[in-house]
Amino acid sequence: SRPRELGIHFGILPTGSLNAITDVTGVKVGHFTKIEGESIRTGVTAVLPHEGNIFQEKVPAAIFVGNGFGKLAGVTQVKELGSLESPIILTNTLSVAAGIEGVVKHTLAQSGNEQVQSVNAIVGETNDGFLNDIRGMHISAEEVIRAIQNASEGKVQEGNVGAGTGTVCFGWKGGIGTSSRKLPESLGGYTVGVLVQTNFGGNLQIAGIPVGQKLGKYPFKDALEKSDGSCMIVVATDAPVLERNLERMAQRAMMGLAKTGGIASNGSGDYVIAFSTNPNLRIPHSNPSQQLIKGEFLANDDMTSLFLAVIEATEEAIINSLFAAETMLGKEGRKVEALPKEKVLEMLKMSSSNRLD
Amino acid sequence: SRPRELGIHFGILPTGSLNAITDVTGVKVGHFTKIEGESIRTGVTAVLPHEGNIFQEKVPAAIFVGNGFGKLAGVTQVKELGSLESPIILTNTLSVAAGIEGVVKHTLAQSGNEQVQSVNAIVGETNDGFLNDIRGMHISAEEVIRAIQNASEGKVQEGNVGAGTGTVCFGWKGGIGTSSRKLPESLGGYTVGVLVQTNFGGNLQIAGIPVGQKLGKYPFKDALEKSDGSCMIVVATDAPVLERNLERMAQRAMMGLAKTGGIASNGSGDYVIAFSTNPNLRIPHSNPSQQLIKGEFLANDDMTSLFLAVIEATEEAIINSLFAAETMLGKEGRKVEALPKEKVLEMLKMSSSNRLD
Amino acid sequence: SRPRELGIHFGILPTGSLNAITDVTGVKVGHFTKIEGESIRTGVTAVLPHEGNIFQEKVPAAIFVGNGFGKLAGVTQVKELGSLESPIILTNTLSVAAGIEGVVKHTLAQSGNEQVQSVNAIVGETNDGFLNDIRGMHISAEEVIRAIQNASEGKVQEGNVGAGTGTVCFGWKGGIGTSSRKLPESLGGYTVGVLVQTNFGGNLQIAGIPVGQKLGKYPFKDALEKSDGSCMIVVATDAPVLERNLERMAQRAMMGLAKTGGIASNGSGDYVIAFSTNPNLRIPHSNPSQQLIKGEFLANDDMTSLFLAVIEATEEAIINSLFAAETMLGKEGRKVEALPKEKVLEMLKMSSSNRLD
Amino acid sequence: SRPRELGIHFGILPTGSLNAITDVTGVKVGHFTKIEGESIRTGVTAVLPHEGNIFQEKVPAAIFVGNGFGKLAGVTQVKELGSLESPIILTNTLSVAAGIEGVVKHTLAQSGNEQVQSVNAIVGETNDGFLNDIRGMHISAEEVIRAIQNASEGKVQEGNVGAGTGTVCFGWKGGIGTSSRKLPESLGGYTVGVLVQTNFGGNLQIAGIPVGQKLGKYPFKDALEKSDGSCMIVVATDAPVLERNLERMAQRAMMGLAKTGGIASNGSGDYVIAFSTNPNLRIPHSNPSQQLIKGEFLANDDMTSLFLAVIEATEEAIINSLFAAETMLGKEGRKVEALPKEKVLEMLKMSSSNRLD
Repeated sequence: SRPRELGIHFGILPTGSLNAITDVTGVKVGHFTKIEGESIRTGVTAVLPHEGNIFQEKVPAAIFVGNGFGKLAGVTQVKELGSLESPIILTNTLSVAAGIEGVVKHTLAQSGNEQVQSVNAIVGETNDGFLNDIRGMHISAEEVIRAIQNASEGKVQEGNVGAGTGTVCFGWKGGIGTSSRKLPESLGGYTVGVLVQTNFGGNLQIAGIPVGQKLGKYPFKDALEKSDGSCMIVVATDAPVLERNLERMAQRAMMGLAKTGGIASNGSGDYVIAFSTNPNLRIPHSNPSQQLIKGEFLANDDMTSLFLAVIEATEEAIINSLFAAETMLGKEGRKVEALPKEKVLEMLKMSSSNRLD
Repeated sequence: SRPRELGIHFGILPTGSLNAITDVTGVKVGHFTKIEGESIRTGVTAVLPHEGNIFQEKVPAAIFVGNGFGKLAGVTQVKELGSLESPIILTNTLSVAAGIEGVVKHTLAQSGNEQVQSVNAIVGETNDGFLNDIRGMHISAEEVIRAIQNASEGKVQEGNVGAGTGTVCFGWKGGIGTSSRKLPESLGGYTVGVLVQTNFGGNLQIAGIPVGQKLGKYPFKDALEKSDGSCMIVVATDAPVLERNLERMAQRAMMGLAKTGGIASNGSGDYVIAFSTNPNLRIPHSNPSQQLIKGEFLANDDMTSLFLAVIEATEEAIINSLFAAETMLGKEGRKVEALPKEKVLEMLKMSSSNRLD
Repeated sequence: SRPRELGIHFGILPTGSLNAITDVTGVKVGHFTKIEGESIRTGVTAVLPHEGNIFQEKVPAAIFVGNGFGKLAGVTQVKELGSLESPIILTNTLSVAAGIEGVVKHTLAQSGNEQVQSVNAIVGETNDGFLNDIRGMHISAEEVIRAIQNASEGKVQEGNVGAGTGTVCFGWKGGIGTSSRKLPESLGGYTVGVLVQTNFGGNLQIAGIPVGQKLGKYPFKDALEKSDGSCMIVVATDAPVLERNLERMAQRAMMGLAKTGGIASNGSGDYVIAFSTNPNLRIPHSNPSQQLIKGEFLANDDMTSLFLAVIEATEEAIINSLFAAETMLGKEGRKVEALPKEKVLEMLKMSSSNRLD
Repeated sequence: SRPRELGIHFGILPTGSLNAITDVTGVKVGHFTKIEGESIRTGVTAVLPHEGNIFQEKVPAAIFVGNGFGKLAGVTQVKELGSLESPIILTNTLSVAAGIEGVVKHTLAQSGNEQVQSVNAIVGETNDGFLNDIRGMHISAEEVIRAIQNASEGKVQEGNVGAGTGTVCFGWKGGIGTSSRKLPESLGGYTVGVLVQTNFGGNLQIAGIPVGQKLGKYPFKDALEKSDGSCMIVVATDAPVLERNLERMAQRAMMGLAKTGGIASNGSGDYVIAFSTNPNLRIPHSNPSQQLIKGEFLANDDMTSLFLAVIEATEEAIINSLFAAETMLGKEGRKVEALPKEKVLEMLKMSSSNRLD
């Protein structure tokens, strides 16, 4: 069961129907999971902003760097042009090249892109090298394309899947997690969806309870344990938001991460990629010269509720990843345990009643 | 009593002896409080990085913008040069000019600065216009200088004092708060101190407990309440950290703010100013031409514990400001209640025992 | 005569009718010049984006920092919100406080702003302390308001006027300069106007000719001469451009400065403030909640000609300031000579014929 | 002959002995050129900051984005950590993946890197798709490694070589160019070297003379011609400069580009990567915990002469690339002419005598 089904609350806003990034209409998620032998524990997760030709119909986008010890490709073009023109790929640190190659080949091959000579691939990563033979570079461009092709709407698989196959979070098995929020109609009725690849450390808190500390897993316990790692966060919304305000939304995702006890340690590559799927804000690749772009977008004053939605959905997506991930054996016989959910639930029950129904 | 004395815990690191920014050796804090008639509720708080001539002996510094709806003066020079050359002033939004004028006059008048023709004043603000007749611009340059002259080491007054006199936080009376952390010797033994001016909104959490929600004060309760506001955060450390890593420390303060339920709403001016007082990293104003600066500073790999210290001390400083602030009557007969501490303590007691001794 | 009237060419695009920032419809410029006794040589220049209430009808804006050794106030709010809500003030380094105070008082006093409690003043400066008794802080808030009130459309006074009264550029007398470009109709027909306050050093080039070197004034001639100083640059356009592309335009102004031989020396405070006056992109201060902003704006692909316009107009505005400024006596009997225009023209004549008609 | 040998001057500072980036001790450059059949016209250029194991002995580094329409990989980690840990690779736009894969494989295979699980590859590109079958993705990781292995000190080949094989600049054949400056001993005696991959447009100026205009090649001649393209710029210095001041140096390179008539058009990917080879500023990958880094570095006040050196060397490196590049036939029978050097020299001779000896 997901935490929310177990009665754990995160914030005050309602979720979308799937409590997933795919609650944002048109967004698709695809995984390619690679578990082979004793030491390959890795994969690819693709997030597609819409089902059309993304290169030809770009979407407004922004990236916020929570901590830049990472290899996210494609950052500067998103900042300069304010748009995203390809699927977002998540994978392992040493497979970013495969990610870019996959996105480029996928884009060049799409119908309508016969003249395309430039593609800005967004490829993020976390380091799954504790469980996975990362130096083997086991992801190929073709497998990246498989993840893109696997993308679908609907329920999103969480835990040890795709880019989350081999990740570790707060000392337990991490993975892919997702969540969403739906604003009340009086606040626009927009949906915000978040997907995370969790591979970071800190002092785990669940719904405010310092679970990590109680379970004896937290940074600096003996001044030796590492809290390094990374978290990739993808934020989607159907709200009509341009790139500047998308960057502000992205920045708030780190505040959601903070509420889980993450500390953005030195070695963390924490990035947030935010985009709007709003059909009225599409950016055509081939805009006739001097033809103005028409847009209708939210005023600054109407952004606050979307900020709150991002914070809440990010916190919940991270905890969802921990609840979904299962104990994993990997490279060199290493074992990473799943979060002891029974113990955690007990702790939450001992706490204030408003956390468990 | 401060929250910690009441048994409330924030994180895992020990505090310094005063649990205040002044635990960082040499740092001084001065307040000038202006409460006059029915509608003047404002003031100035000054933070001095060391007791020498700051202009002649600059300190490494950095600023992180959590949300830039604010008027903080002096940002770009700190970024370009990596240093701070004046006291940091906090005041109200429409008194930034007075703040700059005060710092400039103070600096020009200091012995040794007879030839100085350029001063980069760092003046932050939050908007106390709910309780204070802010349009009256009641702070003068002379009063800013008074705050600087009032600066001292030792215990720091919190609550309705200085720049916190008229502020509102999470719907209750905010103010000045401070806290510190002292790393174990194995992690360098450094001290991190934080001082905040709290004037922001969100969904108040104390030590993880959703107090705001339980007390019926949270954003969007009826889609009408505003959560706007601002938080100025000053981070001091004696750790030998240069400007790039100070900026990373500053960025983490927003993660501490997030843990109190802050959401960096659209209208918030959330800024973090971080500096190092380490005597080996002073930057002389008059460095002989071509003479190299010698520095010894922490490696990136040793920053994580300082990040955690910033997060914890910021969270605690904000809650400290709420516990210290008292109910205030102000402009147009408005009243802002103090946080109902008894109720809050009861809620915390009902929760998990590890929050209250 | 202005350089262009003397036959000197700058680039390939035509100018507007006045060859001034006021070629952008609605833009007004006002100067307040203060020359008193032997040592007051300073002033204020105000640039107004339109003639309405700027606070109530904000304009899209962006700021680029060429070199941040300066005190420009208001930077972070422009970046966060993408808009300008006040006149732009230029003055001397130690009068930024007066500039902010003047803008705040002006704004609070305007009809329609009775409820305003927050104003983001944009106040830039350069250091006129070589000729001016800058430590005397001789500019008052009232004089700043005078500059705003003096603002008018039409011809712009250049040289030793307003904020340019006491400045020095490339070793000669600098000052205020302005220029404009009008794109051909096939490229949209938009106008770009630039106004500069020149107070910087380097290796002066005019229309490509290394004038500074030939006249024996250039940095490092004897490894002693300083090239420090600053340049404030204001860029206005009627093109429908939002903040991201305005920032890109602003960035190009530094490329125009480079073509005059400027080097953005360590001590330079080089800033570019760009805004669009396009009436369809105004941002109402009081936008009804959840009402979308409708905008029509240029696509990225149509920006290049505007970039070229900025580069050309900035180069010409700087040279215009040097041609307009006259020899000035100031503080401590110091004298800064005007550019020896006759010699310069001779040098240009000796050069390739396409520079002089 | 190179322009300088033909008597063309660029600025006032002397060059290093080779007038190349390799004048900075330890810097090596390697090319891999791929000219096959009628439509493969591409290659790889590698710049190595020193001859040791770069991953184990990182160097201070910074990146400035002149215009971010490009795919440069590795940007955020350089910004976060202030260091470079791999060779810098330049290639074509659709071969960035191959570039990363090559750098990763090269680094993993190096002696001493057996435990390395994370590599931040810096891979820049420009789009050679006018002459080259770029969609064919003809560069492999192995060929990238070949470029690294080909790296050597000494004279650097310019023009149609490596990553410059298929590039176009100002309408003529572009390519690789390099230049350097050596400061006088009174200014520290440091060397600055620049290497460029030129593939951009604008209004070509050589030593101030508007060559492009005179030859009828400039943007907007008929409102149709494109000036898009990109310029990758690598700046090396032996001066002891940390990352913040390296970023400032990088920013100045765009000012050198401006002096050649470049305009950083919308479609340009203009990036500057700067690093210091100074042996006292190396950053060990394995620094003992809590051991301080000792550094001696230049004060801000001593940076200006290095800024000038960057501007001059960048301008000259770009013009060098144009003089070295030869007419090239490529894809679909397209032909890009070399700069007509005889005509250009004639124009320069007609101009002021100080440009030609």
